[in-house]
Amino acid sequence: MDGEAQQISLLDGKEDKFDGVVVNLMEVVSMTVDDFDAKLDFSLRTWKGQGKKGIWIKLPRELSSLVDTAIKKGFTYHHAEKEYVMLTSWLREPPSTLPAYASHRIGIAAFVLNKNGEMLVVQENSGYLKDKDAWKVPTGTIKEGESIWAGAIREVKEETHIDTKFVEVLAFKESHQAVWQRKTDIFFVCELEASTFEIKKQDSEIFAAKWMLVEEYVNQPVHAEEGNEMFMLIANILLKRFQKEHMGFQNVHTTKSLKESLYSSVDHSAKHLSETCDETSTSTCLSKLSS
Amino acid sequence: MDGEAQQISLLDGKEDKFDGVVVNLMEVVSMTVDDFDAKLDFSLRTWKGQGKKGIWIKLPRELSSLVDTAIKKGFTYHHAEKEYVMLTSWLREPPSTLPAYASHRIGIAAFVLNKNGEMLVVQENSGYLKDKDAWKVPTGTIKEGESIWAGAIREVKEETHIDTKFVEVLAFKESHQAVWQRKTDIFFVCELEASTFEIKKQDSEIFAAKWMLVEEYVNQPVHAEEGNEMFMLIANILLKRFQKEHMGFQNVHTTKSLKESLYSSVDHSAKHLSETCDETSTSTCLSKLSS
Repeated sequence: MDGEAQQISLLDGKEDKFDGVVVNLMEVVSMTVDDFDAKLDFSLRTWKGQGKKGIWIKLPRELSSLVDTAIKKGFTYHHAEKEYVMLTSWLREPPSTLPAYASHRIGIAAFVLNKNGEMLVVQENSGYLKDKDAWKVPTGTIKEGESIWAGAIREVKEETHIDTKFVEVLAFKESHQAVWQRKTDIFFVCELEASTFEIKKQDSEIFAAKWMLVEEYVNQPVHAEEGNEMFMLIANILLKRFQKEHMGFQNVHTTKSLKESLYSSVDHSAKHLSETCDETSTSTCLSKLSS
Repeated sequence: MDGEAQQISLLDGKEDKFDGVVVNLMEVVSMTVDDFDAKLDFSLRTWKGQGKKGIWIKLPRELSSLVDTAIKKGFTYHHAEKEYVMLTSWLREPPSTLPAYASHRIGIAAFVLNKNGEMLVVQENSGYLKDKDAWKVPTGTIKEGESIWAGAIREVKEETHIDTKFVEVLAFKESHQAVWQRKTDIFFVCELEASTFEIKKQDSEIFAAKWMLVEEYVNQPVHAEEGNEMFMLIANILLKRFQKEHMGFQNVHTTKSLKESLYSSVDHSAKHLSETCDETSTSTCLSKLSS
């Protein structure tokens, strides 16, 4: 055994297209602090010599003993998810151009209309409106990777068991520091069309649920209380919409990918585009679109 | 010195309104691993006995040596920012009801029109369109805590030195896994009105910038290429808007808070609301609004 001349190897990293190196240790079952310390030292010297910029180290929860070593060598936290922490080090002069992680949370409020022209309303077991005998529309938070339209349909189903079809986004509200001090919430008011009628409320979050006339909902005293302008603005949008005086943003998907969709008030069908625009000239295609 | 009967104290935590405890160690200058280990053990037993649900521990970068201890006692990462990591433990039966952290990134694309009816376009030093001799609108990422309208104005100023006034949001695009695998980007297409004319491009990101006729922009061959449907859909929205056939979402602020604003196509002035609705009945107020 040649213990003295043991060779220190580089951490196993992949180069990215921004002159950076990504070290992903998610599949590594174990590594001692000493081993990591020596490899990281050697790697940082090597990468610096190669002119690398940003270094990323993804450490699984199982290797939490290595976090301290990386921090002591100048790494900072970039973000963390349940089962890992991502650490970064910028080897050049600041400012770092490493991309930021998520900065926003997305919520929805659902304006669900049935065939009688009534809207779906609920009272929650907790929250601001709890003791005011006021009715609100179903609301909720979009899950990671979930689309806005899909999240609105899911929340209505979960809270009231009503099946719906997404119609459009009527408005959105931007609120800074609403839940997390550094983050911003964007709350999309969605119109949905009910395809079932019988309400079965979810018990853990929902105290009561029913169908209500739109005018009755809008005219609730709570909407006129001081400090509740935002409630009133949104109630006004629902009323205008019910009176067909408001236009929102419908969504279109491209044929390319289910990962993308576009919301706007322009009536252009993505299907139409992909079927006709490939075989014709740009100007013909656009003149069709704008006709 | 009574070394043997040293008393173990609880970690200094605040109760939250969800039967949880928040331990914020950001102001703690130093704590040994052994000290933290003993206190955390004692605290967890105590909190469990008290029926507490979610435990939060906020550890500054300087106390990274304690991360491993918390993880070994069953904590998971909740999120991290540059200078701290937030760890959580759910003491009850799953599922945990701890709120999720940010899930989305927000970007903007700026449709900037000058008084001659021309739009502002750029070519970037890198990116998809780089080698295609194509012109694009200025784009960028909203910073933490920044409003959409403010981010659009800032990006245009940074890239081209043009001063603008926000007009409205024309559309938005939702893209899953665009940058981060678990996250979603929402990209707001904003119309802005230029109040200056002379372009001074920023050199690090921008290769060229100029004013261009809207039709010329829309009719670029790149918009008709296969796989570029999203470009064409957005170009179509800009064209429709230029032809005054499209309506977007304007923003209104409430008087209550600069932290909130609402975007919709309904023409209701928040100023009007706050001035008149406080002194009159709900129905009068709403009838004014909907008149």
